[in-house]
Amino acid sequence: MKYFKYGTTFFISVFFILSVRVQSVDSTHYRFLRQIYDYALTEAECYESLRHICKEIGPRLSGSTQAARAVDYTMELMTNYNFDRVFLQEVQVPVWVRGAKEEAYAILPSGDSKKLPVCALGGSVATPQNGLEAPLVMVHDFDELGALGKKNIKGKIVFFNRPMPPTCIHTFDAYGKTVDQRFAGAAEAAKYGAAGVVVRSMGLRNDDFPHTGSMKYYGKGEKIPAVAISTNGADFLKQELESGKEVNFYFKTQCKNLLDTLSHNVVGQIEGSDHKDKFIIAGGHLDSWDMGEGAHDDGAGTVQAIEALRILKSLGYKPKHSIRAVLFMNEENGMRGAKKYAELLKENNEEHVAAIESDRGGFTPRGFSFEGVDEESELIMFLKREFAPFNMLQWDAGYSAPDIRQLDHHETMLFGYITDSQRYFDVHHADSDVFETVHKRELELGAAAMAALIYLIDQKL
Amino acid sequence: MKYFKYGTTFFISVFFILSVRVQSVDSTHYRFLRQIYDYALTEAECYESLRHICKEIGPRLSGSTQAARAVDYTMELMTNYNFDRVFLQEVQVPVWVRGAKEEAYAILPSGDSKKLPVCALGGSVATPQNGLEAPLVMVHDFDELGALGKKNIKGKIVFFNRPMPPTCIHTFDAYGKTVDQRFAGAAEAAKYGAAGVVVRSMGLRNDDFPHTGSMKYYGKGEKIPAVAISTNGADFLKQELESGKEVNFYFKTQCKNLLDTLSHNVVGQIEGSDHKDKFIIAGGHLDSWDMGEGAHDDGAGTVQAIEALRILKSLGYKPKHSIRAVLFMNEENGMRGAKKYAELLKENNEEHVAAIESDRGGFTPRGFSFEGVDEESELIMFLKREFAPFNMLQWDAGYSAPDIRQLDHHETMLFGYITDSQRYFDVHHADSDVFETVHKRELELGAAAMAALIYLIDQKL
Repeated sequence: MKYFKYGTTFFISVFFILSVRVQSVDSTHYRFLRQIYDYALTEAECYESLRHICKEIGPRLSGSTQAARAVDYTMELMTNYNFDRVFLQEVQVPVWVRGAKEEAYAILPSGDSKKLPVCALGGSVATPQNGLEAPLVMVHDFDELGALGKKNIKGKIVFFNRPMPPTCIHTFDAYGKTVDQRFAGAAEAAKYGAAGVVVRSMGLRNDDFPHTGSMKYYGKGEKIPAVAISTNGADFLKQELESGKEVNFYFKTQCKNLLDTLSHNVVGQIEGSDHKDKFIIAGGHLDSWDMGEGAHDDGAGTVQAIEALRILKSLGYKPKHSIRAVLFMNEENGMRGAKKYAELLKENNEEHVAAIESDRGGFTPRGFSFEGVDEESELIMFLKREFAPFNMLQWDAGYSAPDIRQLDHHETMLFGYITDSQRYFDVHHADSDVFETVHKRELELGAAAMAALIYLIDQKL
Repeated sequence: MKYFKYGTTFFISVFFILSVRVQSVDSTHYRFLRQIYDYALTEAECYESLRHICKEIGPRLSGSTQAARAVDYTMELMTNYNFDRVFLQEVQVPVWVRGAKEEAYAILPSGDSKKLPVCALGGSVATPQNGLEAPLVMVHDFDELGALGKKNIKGKIVFFNRPMPPTCIHTFDAYGKTVDQRFAGAAEAAKYGAAGVVVRSMGLRNDDFPHTGSMKYYGKGEKIPAVAISTNGADFLKQELESGKEVNFYFKTQCKNLLDTLSHNVVGQIEGSDHKDKFIIAGGHLDSWDMGEGAHDDGAGTVQAIEALRILKSLGYKPKHSIRAVLFMNEENGMRGAKKYAELLKENNEEHVAAIESDRGGFTPRGFSFEGVDEESELIMFLKREFAPFNMLQWDAGYSAPDIRQLDHHETMLFGYITDSQRYFDVHHADSDVFETVHKRELELGAAAMAALIYLIDQKL
């Protein structure tokens, strides 16, 4: 490099010279991928679109005014980008509203009470109008709950406090090992006559943000109200209970489920030159929870999917297959948009060769997971090789992503965009999921990766 | 997993189940690496040590009181950890002091002036007492400077404004392509009689933080004062100049170079059982620039190196080779500590089989770079395989890390810890390099990676 000519040992040694890194061979594919990445890192508009979605629209729970505005905004955006076809798919979605801000207190034997940060779980019924107070019982899993049984649970508030295991390298694994408490805690506790449920937030950081998320009532139990409590709040309760104190828990929520309403998936399309009726789609979900701004979950995926198509179009690429950006509605609490998309695909005989989804936040790219394609297949080997110069090194056979999983992986190869997962559960479903936590370059690298994957599949199949 | 028993399609599909990921075979090595990572993610103390270094001590430029306090603190820390031997190595270090906060203004033809955020480059001489004002000339590289020549440069202030190329996937590559302006800009501009130099900060983000860093005077030119300007400030100057305006630049700095003073490397050692006189070392540098808190650069590497030894000791591991945490002094502006370490190693006939350094911030781990060991060697294949389950997938032959490069790579294998580089130059050498930007888990994963690498090399050699 140039500066060697000024070289003293000192001079050379202070620079981080990684120039020896071997780049891919100078193939046609490499050159086009390089164009994609160059464009994304200099001309992408996804960061500004995300700013709009987060700051001008805000959180976008299905059925909300904001969700409707996000439909309009992204439809307009893709129309302005002159995609060949931009259209909506009607979807009936569930409507759940949080109502007034939740309140919660721990009431200690001394008579002292401590205010605690909670939020209702999505889909929960409300407490009685004046709130609910009952003795608190801590459990860690459903076996422990069952062992305590009706005599210890009836009339009580059950506190599910099994933390996400910090030892998982991939934080989604830790989520998978603990989210049963949030999803099924109320239904399980209701079997034994519990009056309500408070669940430790799905997060790996000690902080004061409660994290909401979906829950479901099933079985013969009553529908009892459920809230999440921040990790710090959960640790406080644990400490009090473990010191042998009898703690009462009080909480008041005003959430409710309303009637289903009409909403939409938004689809932008660029027509294929050779296989017009065969599709490669890239997606994210347009809805979010009603907390924070839905920046990482999944504003990031939404704008990356749109940007992926815009990059290819801007570079003058004419795909052989038709390609789509699909913005699914209602991933968070019903998956109705994705199910509708899968239905319509069959009705319309649209063959989908591949589907890609970004729904693990706008963090730095690591690779792709996949379903419906063999780990040792030529395609996967090809993708690994072509993506290596772009530091996309993680290729995991397994779970892809939530919306595209509604498609049949026997017919469609499914790819989930993998980001670095360390910071994801700091913000997931919480007020901390705001635009400021998304890094511009990391977001753009994700859009580039999705564009590159569309291109490589389009070329190879 | 457990929650399948409650399964409805919806229930399953909302979870991010990555459980199909294939883990390494259940070897002895895997089990011990798993212990290392488990310990690091639950019991590590490095995050709290880093908090102390950043918040109780602060930035630690060589020769400063804070650098001396950091020597004392880390010496005490490793002594409290009961490492077999903790000792100092005396090093004479250069002393440069910034003096009062810098001032800078752009003076426009209208007579208006605009205040701009600058900081003196490390090693720079000061401006005259009342500051320096002269017409501003923008250039992008030394060829352009030379083409303008004496007649256009003499008496002017040269503005080096070549941005870090955003298209580099690895931001250190972008740094390598532009840092010549900062390091050699003043010396090169002085050849043509420039009065001073202002350099665009080495950063990829548009913000108001000026980034300092080392520079060097050489050649026959005068020693002229040099400052870095924030990226936003540089863009302002560029805009004014490109609109055809004649802009004067005024700046005032009070920095100076003092006499060398005594400082220290800090070394903590655990004795080897089989090869007491053969060493594997893990290091970081204890000094930092005098801005921010030196959190990522290189408080992170310092505490990770100490933690790596503490993890191995806490797990009861008895290394065959002697292992050391080496905290180098003066990486930033002289590399004197590392040079002294390399000298003493020869004097004392201490064979060093491998050296590892963390100096790319406390960000999420990606892998290791290496020198002095063949890319196709059995050792590298072994390391790749054993580290794969821990998502350390990037193994780059090439530049390792600045301090350990003072060792001879023909005698010692050199490993540089690779982090994700996207956010590094947002904070590098700037007031933004503070503790709050370091993520606890990401820091701990780095300590685990270093402990794991020490262990695997110790076992394999």
